[in-house]
Amino acid sequence: MTTRPPAEVGMTLDEVDTPALLIDLDAFEGNLKALADTLAGTSVKLRPHGKAHKCPIIGHKQMALGAVGLCCQKVSEAEAMVFGGLPDIYITNEIIGARKLARLAPLAHQARIATCVDNPISIAPLSEAAQAAGVEIRVLVDVNVGQNRCGVEPGDAAVPLAQAIDKAKGLSFGGLQAYHGTSQHFRTHEERRAAIKGACEAVEKTIGALKKAGLDCAEVSGGGTGTYPFEVASGLYTELQAGSYIFMDADYGLNKAEDGSPFKDFRQSLFVLATVISHPAADRMITDAGTKALSVDSGMPTAHDLAGINYKMAGDEHGRLELDRTNADLSVGDKIQVVPSHCDTTVALYEWFVGLRGGHVESVWPITGHGATQ
Amino acid sequence: MTTRPPAEVGMTLDEVDTPALLIDLDAFEGNLKALADTLAGTSVKLRPHGKAHKCPIIGHKQMALGAVGLCCQKVSEAEAMVFGGLPDIYITNEIIGARKLARLAPLAHQARIATCVDNPISIAPLSEAAQAAGVEIRVLVDVNVGQNRCGVEPGDAAVPLAQAIDKAKGLSFGGLQAYHGTSQHFRTHEERRAAIKGACEAVEKTIGALKKAGLDCAEVSGGGTGTYPFEVASGLYTELQAGSYIFMDADYGLNKAEDGSPFKDFRQSLFVLATVISHPAADRMITDAGTKALSVDSGMPTAHDLAGINYKMAGDEHGRLELDRTNADLSVGDKIQVVPSHCDTTVALYEWFVGLRGGHVESVWPITGHGATQ
Repeated sequence: MTTRPPAEVGMTLDEVDTPALLIDLDAFEGNLKALADTLAGTSVKLRPHGKAHKCPIIGHKQMALGAVGLCCQKVSEAEAMVFGGLPDIYITNEIIGARKLARLAPLAHQARIATCVDNPISIAPLSEAAQAAGVEIRVLVDVNVGQNRCGVEPGDAAVPLAQAIDKAKGLSFGGLQAYHGTSQHFRTHEERRAAIKGACEAVEKTIGALKKAGLDCAEVSGGGTGTYPFEVASGLYTELQAGSYIFMDADYGLNKAEDGSPFKDFRQSLFVLATVISHPAADRMITDAGTKALSVDSGMPTAHDLAGINYKMAGDEHGRLELDRTNADLSVGDKIQVVPSHCDTTVALYEWFVGLRGGHVESVWPITGHGATQ
Repeated sequence: MTTRPPAEVGMTLDEVDTPALLIDLDAFEGNLKALADTLAGTSVKLRPHGKAHKCPIIGHKQMALGAVGLCCQKVSEAEAMVFGGLPDIYITNEIIGARKLARLAPLAHQARIATCVDNPISIAPLSEAAQAAGVEIRVLVDVNVGQNRCGVEPGDAAVPLAQAIDKAKGLSFGGLQAYHGTSQHFRTHEERRAAIKGACEAVEKTIGALKKAGLDCAEVSGGGTGTYPFEVASGLYTELQAGSYIFMDADYGLNKAEDGSPFKDFRQSLFVLATVISHPAADRMITDAGTKALSVDSGMPTAHDLAGINYKMAGDEHGRLELDRTNADLSVGDKIQVVPSHCDTTVALYEWFVGLRGGHVESVWPITGHGATQ
């Protein structure tokens, strides 16, 4: 890693350097177990998304509870996972470019590797890279199930792609990538249910078209932390790609359950520890965690256990607490825990997870997929 | 570094893996020289802010053109710079916490080190850390010159702080930290002029109060890429902290010069190279650069040289190009250059700079302050 860890095992929370990425290990392990338990006895396998944590140690914990492998979003992320000993990685993304393919294919000597395509022109380069490395890569067809990002349209458009994969040397047709990302954050149960109903219709139509062409669809991979109950119940999805369930964030905290109460399938386990570094005015305290320590692509983070205090950004390295009289007891040097608005993009800012239990540091885990943008 | 570099020296732009952080070396060197030339013959020294680049190699280039040292915002950033051979680092921020101080003080064995305070309770721990390490640390008093972030109010409030620093073992009073961050992005020349006029009044008042108490103010440090002409002309500021001038970004691109034309003192030298990975619909292309590759705290980045195409985010790892008929010739696999909306927070996402000249990679520089959040 490039930087030193912000903590050592055995330290109290107060001794941890800030900003630091904390994991409440009890909550985290509860989340790991909760989803594993939900899937036990169903036909749906868990393939959690490594883009949420970028940390092989966490990947191994997911495998130990029954995950069949991990998802990654980038070749460099997959490298971090394979070099960290994970045995089965599916890159849920289109891999375009000679340098990426030349990095991807050799990984299949150390792990089972899969990726996806949505365009016939991507298949020959992938096949050539696999042959050059002397490996076989599973390739899924990415279907647009409603997110309107990547993916071919559902139905017949998938058939020539699947056929071309099936025929290409070094590749095998692995099934369908059918992820509806935006629906994870639809606030109501009914919106999420309707979105995944639409996704399932798209999957069903595509499976039907493939069947007509004589092609079997081994896996249908998708689903996330917000919608997983619907994919699990679908009878169509075979793999669940949830990632954020281990951590949660303020944005997921806005999702509602069926009865309108907050979505509480998983507990918040991820926090950013920040220090109050300045108290220059009665109504204002400044912390050491700004936009380089807390992502803002999903809005502002929230100050945990500081009722009524808004956490605002005051620059790349400063946060601002807008105080009211209820928190006059906060002082310079005090440490506060902040709930990230978006776990994935906040984790991407750090090189270390600091695991806490009973007020002490129990673990310091390197995020070896840190900086893995390619 | 944790990840492999995305390019090798000698490659063509097309061979660079993406997303990658590109520097147009001609524009970059022009920017370095432009500000150095502006300050030559004035009494204002350049102490460029390392938070913009986090890269010792760039720091040495700034020193070679006359910078007296660098600014940093974090202790871990200062470590990266000192371990990279920079001889003089000023941390323009309040350093609070035992672990931070225990990391800061020993750096003064290898480099001249300064920091700032805005609270009397911070002085004893700093003095103790300096004494424990057997070093002297320069300490400036942080004055609120209008940004309303950290800093004591201008005038008399600075006096007891400066006196306490002056008396503390291991510390020496270094002057005033007087940075007005928000004004850097005020769009009109007149707004920026007025903000720095206010800052100068605050500085003058504070220098007067210190003088009355028999304290000399060796340095007044502040100023940035947006306002530097005003600080340089002030006759008060002795050090300029500009950082973004080496790169520029889409947000600075919205600033206006005095005559209302775009602010053009420096050229855009920083780009993110992205690959088109999907073209699933006539009006939509998807790239491999999302919110983990382009920061959005200052709004959306812009697609360079793709007139009329908006760059939107489509997730952590995906960008979306909203196409019109003028760009029907863009294809999957093509690489595009994107101008970050905010250089500092985008640089913080990467481990490597790829320097380009004449269409070829000339340099690959490690960003050794990457991940330096503490």
